[in-house]
Amino acid sequence: MKIAIDQPRLTQELDTLAGFSDAPAPAVTRVVYSETDLRARAYVKGLCADAGLVVREDAVGNTFARWAGSEPDLPAIGTGSHIDAIPHAGRYDGTVGVLGGLEAIRALQRGGARPHRPIELLIFTSEEPTRFGIGCFGSRLLAATLDESAGAQLHDKEGRTLDAWRAAAGFTGDLADVRLPAGYYDAFVELHIEQGPLLERAGIPLGVVTAIAAPASWRIWVEGEGGHAGALLMPQRRDAFCAAAEIVLAVEKAARGTGAVDTVGTVGLCDVFPGAVNSVPSRVCLEMDVRDTDAARRDGVLATMDRVCEEVAARRGVAVRKEIINADPPAQCDARAVEALSRAASAHGLASQKMVSRAYHDSLFMSRIAPTAMLFIPCRHGVSHRPDEYSSPEAIAQGALVLAEAMRELAG
Amino acid sequence: MKIAIDQPRLTQELDTLAGFSDAPAPAVTRVVYSETDLRARAYVKGLCADAGLVVREDAVGNTFARWAGSEPDLPAIGTGSHIDAIPHAGRYDGTVGVLGGLEAIRALQRGGARPHRPIELLIFTSEEPTRFGIGCFGSRLLAATLDESAGAQLHDKEGRTLDAWRAAAGFTGDLADVRLPAGYYDAFVELHIEQGPLLERAGIPLGVVTAIAAPASWRIWVEGEGGHAGALLMPQRRDAFCAAAEIVLAVEKAARGTGAVDTVGTVGLCDVFPGAVNSVPSRVCLEMDVRDTDAARRDGVLATMDRVCEEVAARRGVAVRKEIINADPPAQCDARAVEALSRAASAHGLASQKMVSRAYHDSLFMSRIAPTAMLFIPCRHGVSHRPDEYSSPEAIAQGALVLAEAMRELAG
Repeated sequence: MKIAIDQPRLTQELDTLAGFSDAPAPAVTRVVYSETDLRARAYVKGLCADAGLVVREDAVGNTFARWAGSEPDLPAIGTGSHIDAIPHAGRYDGTVGVLGGLEAIRALQRGGARPHRPIELLIFTSEEPTRFGIGCFGSRLLAATLDESAGAQLHDKEGRTLDAWRAAAGFTGDLADVRLPAGYYDAFVELHIEQGPLLERAGIPLGVVTAIAAPASWRIWVEGEGGHAGALLMPQRRDAFCAAAEIVLAVEKAARGTGAVDTVGTVGLCDVFPGAVNSVPSRVCLEMDVRDTDAARRDGVLATMDRVCEEVAARRGVAVRKEIINADPPAQCDARAVEALSRAASAHGLASQKMVSRAYHDSLFMSRIAPTAMLFIPCRHGVSHRPDEYSSPEAIAQGALVLAEAMRELAG
Repeated sequence: MKIAIDQPRLTQELDTLAGFSDAPAPAVTRVVYSETDLRARAYVKGLCADAGLVVREDAVGNTFARWAGSEPDLPAIGTGSHIDAIPHAGRYDGTVGVLGGLEAIRALQRGGARPHRPIELLIFTSEEPTRFGIGCFGSRLLAATLDESAGAQLHDKEGRTLDAWRAAAGFTGDLADVRLPAGYYDAFVELHIEQGPLLERAGIPLGVVTAIAAPASWRIWVEGEGGHAGALLMPQRRDAFCAAAEIVLAVEKAARGTGAVDTVGTVGLCDVFPGAVNSVPSRVCLEMDVRDTDAARRDGVLATMDRVCEEVAARRGVAVRKEIINADPPAQCDARAVEALSRAASAHGLASQKMVSRAYHDSLFMSRIAPTAMLFIPCRHGVSHRPDEYSSPEAIAQGALVLAEAMRELAG
């Protein structure tokens, strides 16, 4: 059989999905459980139903769209990604794996494939940490690395819980039931833009991911003493924001200091309290993200930051405390799934290279419960999480084609 | 005649006013033109009317409450302060000068004083810069250091203009008419808490202000390049927040570096864009406040910050631009008004000391159009702009008493 991707249709569907946004184009903002997210979900579910897939949603809105196969009780072949987007992001992160995965399934259907195993598209809830501060809570729940207490414990900045948010979005039921049974997937393969520059630089259209970097993030609270910005003299100050600024620079220094290109450290969020030009900051909240392909090296950076926080606190007379948002081990991808992707690329005359994912993905958690691999396509200048994020229609179609080919082999 | 302050009544009125707040007690949040601000204004105007004062409001809501005197056409003796409060502030900043000023007038009325000149209580609109980024726009307009273009130019963070806000609050009319005519006040005396520790430490109940420090504030924009916090490698980064952190620490260093106790520098506001834990900051907005009793020394700190911004921009490959929010000269108080306050303290057996105000006040701008002085009372530990700001009922009553005595002398 011949597999053919309908590139114009896939491009048009990505265009339409990008229109569900709370930021002006080309920026995309689509935060989990927002009205915009719910409308985007409805659009994608409609496309799945049009393809004859059977759609179900779990208690947090993870969405499963299944093509039964000739032996519907066998463990399925899964593919998928996410459609939520951080504030002022681009349009390809996640969505390429969802709509590209759907188009891969449709291409198999059009080609007359009769897979033995079910093939299932999975749209993960909230790969991004925007609303609740933790990324991938949908796949964490599927993999049971979060338990049902997350419903009451996870909350947004205003204190509204995950349980309140999901109920308002129409997702009910017990969080304990989100966990997937053992052996649910025979293999899981996620298509995604690289979010880095390596494929583009090498001129190679496909990357097959063999490992996913280990992310860790902390929320860091600095408590000093506020006062009037005119009247509180410098020697008397315990300015929480000056202390926080030292921590921000120390994250950068520690990440650079490993000497390894794979170590990255970022402070992407900062809230200053009370937040007035004429008031000395009394409290600051930072969110720090540190990643590495090597867990020990990453933990070395975290240990450095522990020492820095302690030293800054002592020297400046402020209190610094941290809350670990996540500290996940790196994932090794499944050799059989990796080879299926590599072979699928070769079968269509496309070069591929094995590589590491520095960004983390729902596949990091899927790898704990299923043989998992990822397929990367190039994105322009390696840019992601920005409005100018871009992958060409051709690159996306090639990704969908190789994904379809690999799923055909894996589904038997 | 004997002047007697009704301390229980004044204390109760301060309590009531503190109840108009958008933060839970003991914090007070009362931002100009909020519903809470408008309700608080109505309360104070009611008290003024109860005292037989004639109340008028100008086009931005500066409120004048006048006791005519026997020669109502003479230039008046003014007193007053503000009732707006920054987020999570205390209850005494400004309010002591408004309700203490009103009680001083009532004490003169009760004592049977028959002043020649009118005595007028003035409640300034928005001493605090919370809503529009600039402090004292009410008194700036009275002193014509802002012109009517401010109505369209000043705006909040969402871009809503002063004109839109004042119209919604019910204040209409031409901003050009806010300017006070030359010679409107024969003298202006403002009662205020010190917002510093000197009177408390010295055990002296009253401070007579001879000069007001020169404030300057800048909005500083840092533009770098965003990207995915996992995938964007450290050597490729132009992280706007790391650059901003250097600027924050440089403000602190430059303010300390003058070696003068009167130099203070603060960064009290910081917005990080896009503001996600997994996104490298592409843009940061800081607000910096630098003050000194010596304008040249303050301007030296500003010049240092200009150099720092340029150096950070060049080294990190980011763009740094500044917007000058204000850069006002220091004010010298009027010798006659200063002496009237000092004599009034002595007349009631109260010690006073001459001092400088490091915080700025509406009197900084009133000094440009009227002979002006300020009277300070101690506040606990010098704390201000915080929920635990505190002045004792006795200290407030002493301030009101001396203010009344001085106004009696000045009004003739």
